[in-house]
Amino acid sequence: MKAKVHVTLKNGVLDPQGQAILAALGHLGFDGVTDVRQGRYIVLDLAETDRARAEAAVKAMCEKLLANTVIENYQFELVP
Amino acid sequence: MKAKVHVTLKNGVLDPQGQAILAALGHLGFDGVTDVRQGRYIVLDLAETDRARAEAAVKAMCEKLLANTVIENYQFELVP
Repeated sequence: MKAKVHVTLKNGVLDPQGQAILAALGHLGFDGVTDVRQGRYIVLDLAETDRARAEAAVKAMCEKLLANTVIENYQFELVP
Repeated sequence: MKAKVHVTLKNGVLDPQGQAILAALGHLGFDGVTDVRQGRYIVLDLAETDRARAEAAVKAMCEKLLANTVIENYQFELVP
């Protein structure tokens, strides 16, 4: 089973990487971009086959390591 | 219109960040993880309202800036 995890900055948290991308896109002539936010995308291969147990494990991984829940949100989906 | 872009390393390309996460998860007691790959998740706010033009613009942004197409793949979806 795979878990696809998205970790994104919470609204209101400054995103210097996103701002750097926005500025670089502007320099390249892409003027139609009004905002950029960058997050992380993490794909975990899990040995677990039970969906409920996998979900609990990935939630714990996100809380403990993958996301800084003070400033970041996480979302994940499990794919067989 | 928003564009949600996923940039991931191509298969076969070493992923030291993913390996670091895998090792850290092991140290935390999460033994059921067999592999980790880390990519980037970029959300673009676009002024463009025409879907076809937005798609062409985001493709160009990915090719020119967001992804290193030698070692990375990208995928994106447009959301109204």
